Amino acid sequence: MIDLNADLGESFGPWVMGDDAAMLDMVTSASLACGGHAGDPETMFATLVMARDRGVTVGAHPGYADLPGFGRRVIPMAPDAVGRMVAAQVGALVGLAALAGTAVRYVKPHGALANLAADDVAVASAIVAAVQAQPGGLALLAISGTVLEQVARAAGVPVFSEIFADRGYQPDGRLVPRNRPGALLHDPEVAADRLLSFLDSGLMAVVDGEPVPLAAQSICLHGDSAGAVAMARELRSRLTAAGVTLAPFLAP
Amino acid sequence: MIDLNADLGESFGPWVMGDDAAMLDMVTSASLACGGHAGDPETMFATLVMARDRGVTVGAHPGYADLPGFGRRVIPMAPDAVGRMVAAQVGALVGLAALAGTAVRYVKPHGALANLAADDVAVASAIVAAVQAQPGGLALLAISGTVLEQVARAAGVPVFSEIFADRGYQPDGRLVPRNRPGALLHDPEVAADRLLSFLDSGLMAVVDGEPVPLAAQSICLHGDSAGAVAMARELRSRLTAAGVTLAPFLAP
Amino acid sequence: MIDLNADLGESFGPWVMGDDAAMLDMVTSASLACGGHAGDPETMFATLVMARDRGVTVGAHPGYADLPGFGRRVIPMAPDAVGRMVAAQVGALVGLAALAGTAVRYVKPHGALANLAADDVAVASAIVAAVQAQPGGLALLAISGTVLEQVARAAGVPVFSEIFADRGYQPDGRLVPRNRPGALLHDPEVAADRLLSFLDSGLMAVVDGEPVPLAAQSICLHGDSAGAVAMARELRSRLTAAGVTLAPFLAP
Amino acid sequence: MIDLNADLGESFGPWVMGDDAAMLDMVTSASLACGGHAGDPETMFATLVMARDRGVTVGAHPGYADLPGFGRRVIPMAPDAVGRMVAAQVGALVGLAALAGTAVRYVKPHGALANLAADDVAVASAIVAAVQAQPGGLALLAISGTVLEQVARAAGVPVFSEIFADRGYQPDGRLVPRNRPGALLHDPEVAADRLLSFLDSGLMAVVDGEPVPLAAQSICLHGDSAGAVAMARELRSRLTAAGVTLAPFLAP
Repeated sequence: MIDLNADLGESFGPWVMGDDAAMLDMVTSASLACGGHAGDPETMFATLVMARDRGVTVGAHPGYADLPGFGRRVIPMAPDAVGRMVAAQVGALVGLAALAGTAVRYVKPHGALANLAADDVAVASAIVAAVQAQPGGLALLAISGTVLEQVARAAGVPVFSEIFADRGYQPDGRLVPRNRPGALLHDPEVAADRLLSFLDSGLMAVVDGEPVPLAAQSICLHGDSAGAVAMARELRSRLTAAGVTLAPFLAP
Repeated sequence: MIDLNADLGESFGPWVMGDDAAMLDMVTSASLACGGHAGDPETMFATLVMARDRGVTVGAHPGYADLPGFGRRVIPMAPDAVGRMVAAQVGALVGLAALAGTAVRYVKPHGALANLAADDVAVASAIVAAVQAQPGGLALLAISGTVLEQVARAAGVPVFSEIFADRGYQPDGRLVPRNRPGALLHDPEVAADRLLSFLDSGLMAVVDGEPVPLAAQSICLHGDSAGAVAMARELRSRLTAAGVTLAPFLAP
Repeated sequence: MIDLNADLGESFGPWVMGDDAAMLDMVTSASLACGGHAGDPETMFATLVMARDRGVTVGAHPGYADLPGFGRRVIPMAPDAVGRMVAAQVGALVGLAALAGTAVRYVKPHGALANLAADDVAVASAIVAAVQAQPGGLALLAISGTVLEQVARAAGVPVFSEIFADRGYQPDGRLVPRNRPGALLHDPEVAADRLLSFLDSGLMAVVDGEPVPLAAQSICLHGDSAGAVAMARELRSRLTAAGVTLAPFLAP
Repeated sequence: MIDLNADLGESFGPWVMGDDAAMLDMVTSASLACGGHAGDPETMFATLVMARDRGVTVGAHPGYADLPGFGRRVIPMAPDAVGRMVAAQVGALVGLAALAGTAVRYVKPHGALANLAADDVAVASAIVAAVQAQPGGLALLAISGTVLEQVARAAGVPVFSEIFADRGYQPDGRLVPRNRPGALLHDPEVAADRLLSFLDSGLMAVVDGEPVPLAAQSICLHGDSAGAVAMARELRSRLTAAGVTLAPFLAP
C-alpha cells in the first residue's frame, strides 16, 4: 500500500501549467502551490475543489515567493523569515480550503526551499516550527533521508517520506542532480519496473552501485513535464495490476 | 464602554508606514494588513507579536492585491473571486498568528474593497461567506449602516460596527467623501468633543443638518496620517478622563 | 500589400503562452509584451532575438501592470499615470531591443488599455504623448476607426490601423463584443475568404447588415489561442496565393 | 572640483523613502531607482521632473527585481540574465526621462548587484555590455577600484568612480563591511574633515593603517538614512567653503 502524490495548482493568472484535472484522477495526494512560487487564489481554489470532488488528500506546497524563478532559486533569507513565509503560505491555502469545504493535511516544501531544508538544520527547524504551530495537526511530507525528515521526527511532527518515480538515485540515497546523466527516467515502463522492485524489496536501484534501502510512504509523480500524464497513468496501472493498494498516507 | 481600533501592519519590505508600536499602545483592537494592499510576512509577524505583547485584539484587514495602489482602487473582479482573495489573505494572517502565539478574531475590509462592500450586496455576500467558512468563528467589523453589516447580520456572522474619529458624516449617516469639505477633522480636541457627545447621546454631528443616530462598538483611528499618534493620544486621554471604558469588542 | 501582426512575447517566468517561434515565421510585425500584463526581461529578450533573426518588425505592446489579470481589467489610473506606465514599458523593451541588436518601431496598446484608448480621449492623448516623447520616431498601431487613431493623427504621430482576421464586425465598424454571437471566426477558410474580399473591395462583412468600408495597413492574428498557428498558416498561404504581398508597414 | 551624488527615487506606491526634494537641492547627480528594487513609474517620473527642474544630472540605478528585499539580496541569475534585467530597467527610466524632457546620462548598479559586480567579472561584463548597447553613450558610475570599473574601462565605456562620504575604508581601499566597527561615519563634521583631507591629498583615511590613494570623480551621499539631509547639507557647505567646486561629472 502506498500513496501517489503530485505537485499541482501551479498555474498563475492566465498561464496554465500541467493538466491538473487529469493528474488529480491519478493521484491519492496533491501538494498545492500557495501563491509563492506559483498559484493565485483562483488557481488554488479551483484545484482545491477538484481535489475535494475526487477525494484526493490535499497538502500545501510552499516555496520561495519568486514567481519569475518558480521557486527554484534560493532567495537569501534568515531561517526565521523562511518560517514566517511558510506560515503565511500554508495559512492562505488553509483559508481557501475552508471556503472550498476541504482541509489541508500536510506540508511539502517546494524546489529550492525543499533542497535547502534537506540539508540545513536551521531552515528545516524553522519550517517544522511553522508547521507545528498551525492548528489541525499538519504533517510534513519530506524527501526520504533528509534533515527535514529528521528534524520533524525529533520535534514530534508527523512526517511521511517520498521517493520519486522518475528521478535517478545515488548510492547514498540522494537524488542524482538534474544536470548529471541518469537524473531523469523518461520511460514509464522502466520507471514502473523500478518502483515495483522497490516496493517488493525496499531497495532502490542507484546509478552506480548496489540498490540501497529507502523508506517511503509516497511516490512523487511530476505534474508539469511533457508526458507527465502518460507516466502517471502507466505507473498507476502497473502498480494496481501488481496488487499494490493506492491510498493516501492521511485521509482527506 | 467602547473599542478603539486602527489599521496597522501597513509597512512593506524596507518601507515603513506609521508608528505601529505607538499606535498599539493606544488601541484595544488592531486590523492588520494581510499582504494584499500592504504587509508582508515579516511585517505581519512583527505586528502580531507587538499586538500579542500588549493584549490587543487582532483582526485581519484584507484589501485588493494592489501594492502600488495601496488597495484604494477597485480592481475589477467577480464577487466570488473577491471572496477567494479574502479567504487567502485572512488565512495568511491566521497562519502567522498561530506562529506568533495569538489569534485573529475578526475581519475588516480595507479601502476600495470596504467601500464597494458597503454598497454592493454580491461583494458583501462573498466576503461574508469567505469569513463564515473559516474556523474559529471570526466576526466582521463593518462601517456602521452599510450593506456589509446587514449581510453579515442576516447570515448569522457576528458583526460589529465602527465610526470614524476624524471623518465628517452626512445627514444619511454616510461619510463625507474625501474630496469634499468637512471630510476630515484635523483638530484632536474637536474630534474628542464630537466623540464624547456621540457616546453620550448616540447622535453623531453631521456636516449639514441635525445629528443622526448611529450604532457603534468601535471607534476607528487612522494610523498612517501625520499626527495620527497625537490624535490617538488625545482621544484616548479625553475618553478615559470622561469615564469611558476602553475595551475590545472581542477578547484577544 | 498588407502587414500581418501578432501579439507575442506573452510568456512569463516558467509559464509559456503560445508558440512564438512558429508565429514569428508567419507574421511581418510582432507586438511584444513589455512586462506589464505579461513578459519579463528573459521572455522579451528571447522574443526580440527571434524577431531580429527573421527580419520581423518589432512593436511594443504595453498593458496594465496586472499579471494575474493579463491586462484585461481596467486598473483605475489618472490618464497621465497611464502615459507614464506606457513610457516605462516601451522604454524597457527599447532597452532590451538595443541589447538584442534590433529596434522597436511602433507601439500598440494591449487589452483593456487598448479598449479604453479606443474611446477615451484623455487616455488616448496620454498614450500618444508618451509615444511621441520617445526618440526614434515611434509609430502607433491602432484599431481602425478608434479615438486613439484620431488623436495620434491629430498629434502628427505616424499611425497605422489594423483589422482582425478572426473577429466579427458590427455595422458601425466596431468589433462584435466577445460575449455576443459572431464575435469570433473559428474557421480559417471563412476568415481567409472574408479577408480576401476585404482586400479586394475595402469593404468588411459585418454581422448584421451591408459590408462597411474600413482602412487597414495590418491584419492582426491572435497568437495565444488554440489553433492560432493553423489559422495563421492558412491565412498566410491564402493571401500569398491570391497575390497579396505581405510586408511590414514599417521596416524592421 | 567634484560631483556629489545620491541614490534617490526609492519610494514605491504609497510608501515614501527619504526626502528627495531636499536631497536634490544638495547633489549635482542623482541615481534613480528603476522599478527593480524600488521605484514605480509615478515615483520615477516625479523624481526625474524634480531633477530636471534643478539641473541635476540623472543616472539609472538598477538593482535586483526584489522589492521586499530592496535589492540587498543576491537573486541567483545567470550573468547574461543580469544584463537583460539591467537593460530593461535602464530602458524604463530612459523612456520616462524622455517624457519628462530630460535624459539619463549614466548607470550605477544598486545594492547586492553593485557588490557582486565589484568582484565578479562575468556579472560586471554583462552589465557593461547592457550599458554599452544603449544609445546615447551612457557612462558607468562605479565604486572606486572595483572589477566593474576595470571592465568598463577595458570595454571603452566612459566610467567614473565614487567614494562614500559616510563609509569607513580598509587599507586595501575597499569599504569596511556594514557589520564591522568603523563601517559608518555618523558625525557630519568628521565626514567633512575626512573628505576635505582626501580632496587635498588624494589619500583616504582607513580604519587600521596609513591613508591610501583613491581616485574619485564623485562623492556618494546616502539619501535614505536618518540624518541624510543634515549630513548632505554639512558636507556641501564645508566643501563649498573650502573652495571646492561642486559640479556633475557629466552635464545633465
